[in-house]
Amino acid sequence: MYKVTFKFENSEDVIVFAALGENLLEVARKTNVAIDAPCNGNAACGKCKVRLLGGELDSKKTHHISDEEYAGGWRLACCSKVCADVEVMVPDIASAYKSRMKVADLSSPDEIKIFDDLKEQVLQAGIALKNDMKVITLQMNEPTLDDTMPDNERFTRALRAQTGVNVIRISYTALNKLAFVLRKSQFEIQVVLRETAKDLFVYDVFEKEKNVIVGGMAVDIGTTTVSAIIIDMLTGEILAKGSAGNGQIRYGADVINRIIESEKPGGREKLQKAVIDETINPLIDTMCRQAHLDHSQIYRLCIASNTTMNHLLLGVFADPVRMEPFVPSFFKTNSVYAYNIGINVNQDAHIILAPNIGSYVGGDITAGAFVSMVWNKPEFSLFIDLGTNGEIVFGNSDFMFSCACSAGPAFEGGDISCGMRATDGAIEACTIDEETMEPTYSVVGDPGTKPVGICGSGIIDIIAELFRCKIISPKGKFIREGKRVRHDEHGMGSYVIAFQEEAGSVKDVEITEVDIDSFIRAKGAIFSAIRTMLSYCDFDVSMIEHVYVAGGIGSGINMQNAIRIGMFPDVPLELYEYIGNSSLVGAYAMLYSNEAERKVYEIAQNMTYIELSNINAYMDEFVGACFLPHTDSALFPSIV
Amino acid sequence: MYKVTFKFENSEDVIVFAALGENLLEVARKTNVAIDAPCNGNAACGKCKVRLLGGELDSKKTHHISDEEYAGGWRLACCSKVCADVEVMVPDIASAYKSRMKVADLSSPDEIKIFDDLKEQVLQAGIALKNDMKVITLQMNEPTLDDTMPDNERFTRALRAQTGVNVIRISYTALNKLAFVLRKSQFEIQVVLRETAKDLFVYDVFEKEKNVIVGGMAVDIGTTTVSAIIIDMLTGEILAKGSAGNGQIRYGADVINRIIESEKPGGREKLQKAVIDETINPLIDTMCRQAHLDHSQIYRLCIASNTTMNHLLLGVFADPVRMEPFVPSFFKTNSVYAYNIGINVNQDAHIILAPNIGSYVGGDITAGAFVSMVWNKPEFSLFIDLGTNGEIVFGNSDFMFSCACSAGPAFEGGDISCGMRATDGAIEACTIDEETMEPTYSVVGDPGTKPVGICGSGIIDIIAELFRCKIISPKGKFIREGKRVRHDEHGMGSYVIAFQEEAGSVKDVEITEVDIDSFIRAKGAIFSAIRTMLSYCDFDVSMIEHVYVAGGIGSGINMQNAIRIGMFPDVPLELYEYIGNSSLVGAYAMLYSNEAERKVYEIAQNMTYIELSNINAYMDEFVGACFLPHTDSALFPSIV
Repeated sequence: MYKVTFKFENSEDVIVFAALGENLLEVARKTNVAIDAPCNGNAACGKCKVRLLGGELDSKKTHHISDEEYAGGWRLACCSKVCADVEVMVPDIASAYKSRMKVADLSSPDEIKIFDDLKEQVLQAGIALKNDMKVITLQMNEPTLDDTMPDNERFTRALRAQTGVNVIRISYTALNKLAFVLRKSQFEIQVVLRETAKDLFVYDVFEKEKNVIVGGMAVDIGTTTVSAIIIDMLTGEILAKGSAGNGQIRYGADVINRIIESEKPGGREKLQKAVIDETINPLIDTMCRQAHLDHSQIYRLCIASNTTMNHLLLGVFADPVRMEPFVPSFFKTNSVYAYNIGINVNQDAHIILAPNIGSYVGGDITAGAFVSMVWNKPEFSLFIDLGTNGEIVFGNSDFMFSCACSAGPAFEGGDISCGMRATDGAIEACTIDEETMEPTYSVVGDPGTKPVGICGSGIIDIIAELFRCKIISPKGKFIREGKRVRHDEHGMGSYVIAFQEEAGSVKDVEITEVDIDSFIRAKGAIFSAIRTMLSYCDFDVSMIEHVYVAGGIGSGINMQNAIRIGMFPDVPLELYEYIGNSSLVGAYAMLYSNEAERKVYEIAQNMTYIELSNINAYMDEFVGACFLPHTDSALFPSIV
Repeated sequence: MYKVTFKFENSEDVIVFAALGENLLEVARKTNVAIDAPCNGNAACGKCKVRLLGGELDSKKTHHISDEEYAGGWRLACCSKVCADVEVMVPDIASAYKSRMKVADLSSPDEIKIFDDLKEQVLQAGIALKNDMKVITLQMNEPTLDDTMPDNERFTRALRAQTGVNVIRISYTALNKLAFVLRKSQFEIQVVLRETAKDLFVYDVFEKEKNVIVGGMAVDIGTTTVSAIIIDMLTGEILAKGSAGNGQIRYGADVINRIIESEKPGGREKLQKAVIDETINPLIDTMCRQAHLDHSQIYRLCIASNTTMNHLLLGVFADPVRMEPFVPSFFKTNSVYAYNIGINVNQDAHIILAPNIGSYVGGDITAGAFVSMVWNKPEFSLFIDLGTNGEIVFGNSDFMFSCACSAGPAFEGGDISCGMRATDGAIEACTIDEETMEPTYSVVGDPGTKPVGICGSGIIDIIAELFRCKIISPKGKFIREGKRVRHDEHGMGSYVIAFQEEAGSVKDVEITEVDIDSFIRAKGAIFSAIRTMLSYCDFDVSMIEHVYVAGGIGSGINMQNAIRIGMFPDVPLELYEYIGNSSLVGAYAMLYSNEAERKVYEIAQNMTYIELSNINAYMDEFVGACFLPHTDSALFPSIV
């Protein structure tokens, strides 16, 4: 066994022992050292770079490592085997990806606006904003020597008398506290319950003076990022909002690699643990502190996520999701409670899942489609969710079609050498001076934050600007020279947005021809999916009356640039609307409103899923779309 | 802080640090060192003796420690404070009390007979021996590209078609396994479910070839001992049987001391943990190994226990049980599932509790009364359960009365200086030669097991024999002298059954006047309770047509001797029947038969509880019964 020491800039060393020949990336994963590996250790993405500080590593050199980098000690973890004691540095660009908790400042109106907007639209659509959770006050006679009815029987009888409901179920939580609370509060108590047409379920009991909050939680589990809010179920108010990186990221950046990882021995448990114990539960801890709420006072959850994410969340065998005939284990389920999967809220909290409609169109899309309100308008609308996968819905109040395309993780910074999520240090917007080729960019974070990478909206801008300034060709190849344009030994071009001196990273923040190529394929997948689906349904881009763009790409997305690179159809800019994380907002709607929940099930039932791979035209469309903006420039009349 | 080392004969040292002045018994409890303390550290019982081997202890000498013992290092843990580093020996007599797991040999017909007897009687009473658990085989079409219905929807539809039940709930356990099991078994699977008039609940799914056992578990939680069986819910067969000491014993031998302990900070959690994590769950582990069954295949539990035990099991505030107006938190509850209290079986297993009817007549008695069949016979029968408390039921198929008396733990060896449970090393039967005063005794355990103490049936025999041989007076004082009769410095007499040389203990096994006095009060409580209740109901001892004796006192009980000491009424011996642990057998009935379960609820509802302390005559009866056999010898005509 050899001693492997992982060093970090901002945290303590992690020391672990490994056998001769063990893969360094595997060693890191076993020890919970987060090394970014979007391609899951296939030597494809070049992201898992570490720097050898001492000892030895048996590493293969790949094209991701230049001679200069190799001399400086840079190695790909996935191409390195342990052969002696070794000390490696895990660089900042990787730790930027590490699950990072972020709590929103709710005093900022921006954070809450999307939820308020939704509520208004939902009400306009005639959907009631209420649910079946309640708090009631219940007064009982104190027992005496002549009236020795036990607490449970006394409580049940009083509840029946007051509510008129006959079938009453009392949770263990309430039973466990009842004797104590009754006596502390002179037999006048507050009861948290859920009342349906059939029965009444008592979640909790409190003393009469206590200010009782009935909490609920909506969660969007993205492949890359998990976002959540805690709400007051009685008023709909947002009490806390937060996000964290999905802890599964170290098992692969996309859903396919996660599924493959989950099929290894113990894999389902490992992936489930990564998202629950390492992501959702710590996020709940943080948010409960923000909301000054006890975990046990979160009584209902709604989770929206893609089909793979909700299968891995429940520890369900997910192989059928990715294998023909592409049959998920469930579209809809009512079976899951917090205690089942160890989510740290009230153990009887029911977990509502936004329904899937196919292997690649999941609950995040049905919830998001609800939020887009496409289903409630006569005009033909397009709803595009840009996540690690791209999903598209088209329709109106009469019909809806949906499809998915594997755009890959490029929109969230995956597959891009300097790509990253839209967190601190990400270049999120950029313009380039046509003359000097000098960039001007803005970075996520406090003023003065140095750039360490580029997030999705930044990549769109950079590519659009490189193309506009004719620095790259329609094929994405560098065609101008300058201080910022470089070529490696293989002739591969790149453009440096921030040299190491000005960057917060250990190396230049740049975009390479390989990155541009990845991104062009991603945007091509989206555009060709839109075209293929529309023409399959006998529609045309010109008939689009509204475009809703959702997803983690961020509000910084420049629609003009997205059109300019041929990612979105060339319809008037004013038809575009960025609606943010519609999956989370949809989960909020389902959580807070029983009618909205039913509506989402109805939407799922009525949405027609189109499998693009079954349509021959799709491949041709895709090939045409892998240009800037497109091989058929007539499709982009506004681009000069 | 001082170093406290607990030493044992058969296990490793336990070392802990304690502050100046800390009580040694408390230090032991915090460290989970089991020192027997039936009186809960009140210096009353003299059981918590430890031997000082090194260092110092600040100990008070009490009458429980003779000068000779004191010189030999014996101290009461509850009367000792830490004042320096110290090393103490925790003697075997205490570790004999330590939670000890015992699994029954099911090949012995004796172990199963009581359950078979019950089944026969239940059938004769017209009660069906069946429950709503089932295993069915379900065949589905395998999905194809033309039939892409998800597993959960496919499964639900097939279940509806096959069973005709519309409302189907699928447990998380089943959902979690479904995709995998379906594909491993070509979409033909076995389903474990519970079908009621209203709905169908799917607990589990298995491959079609698997030999599926639907397990259930019945538990009797006694104040001193926990007994349990695992059964096959489909056939009623006993698959495993075991028992263990109730881990709560170190917090007091009787229910009152346990309640007091549970009210200290963190006490409810501590007592709950002692019985679940330290007693029931290890017992389940052992029994599942015996039954070759996975924990998750135990789908239902029935627990019978006294009111305090079931309150502490559920972690419910139990103070009202012992305080006027004596109102328990529940008689009946349907709220508890395995996941709620962390019992290590299938997490959705419903936990049925035999109903209580008062603070001191609990589920062990309602379940036991069912087993006695008193409710199904025209003759007047008496049912006596001798546990740590004594409970009595009298009645027939028309009416039933019940009452409780705090006999104290003497029947199970508590409050007796050499008392112990009926486990290995306990003297369980004894005769004494009238001439020589030499005893002949039998010991629980393999042949050759040396005596370490005396269990309940042994104490009855010894006292009856001492009385018959006129070694003690009707008041329990020694009135003959001899080699085995001794007197301490205060003149207190005792009789040595086994001198240290022949005993497996570190000291003589003897019975003292204090012990005899304790026991006389215990038996007096039982006898006077019977008399008082009968006369309160306008009955008389002579009208008793059958006496069922149940409880942990053991099948070794000599009814003739119990009558001779005035514990049981002087009715013909052939009317007596020992029915064993009727609480466990009753729990078995409720677990296996839905009709039996309903019958027990009905029995509980119809049983009239009599509070003896409200009846003036009870005290007079009790005083009269505190003699051997009684002050009114006319009540015991058969005793010469």
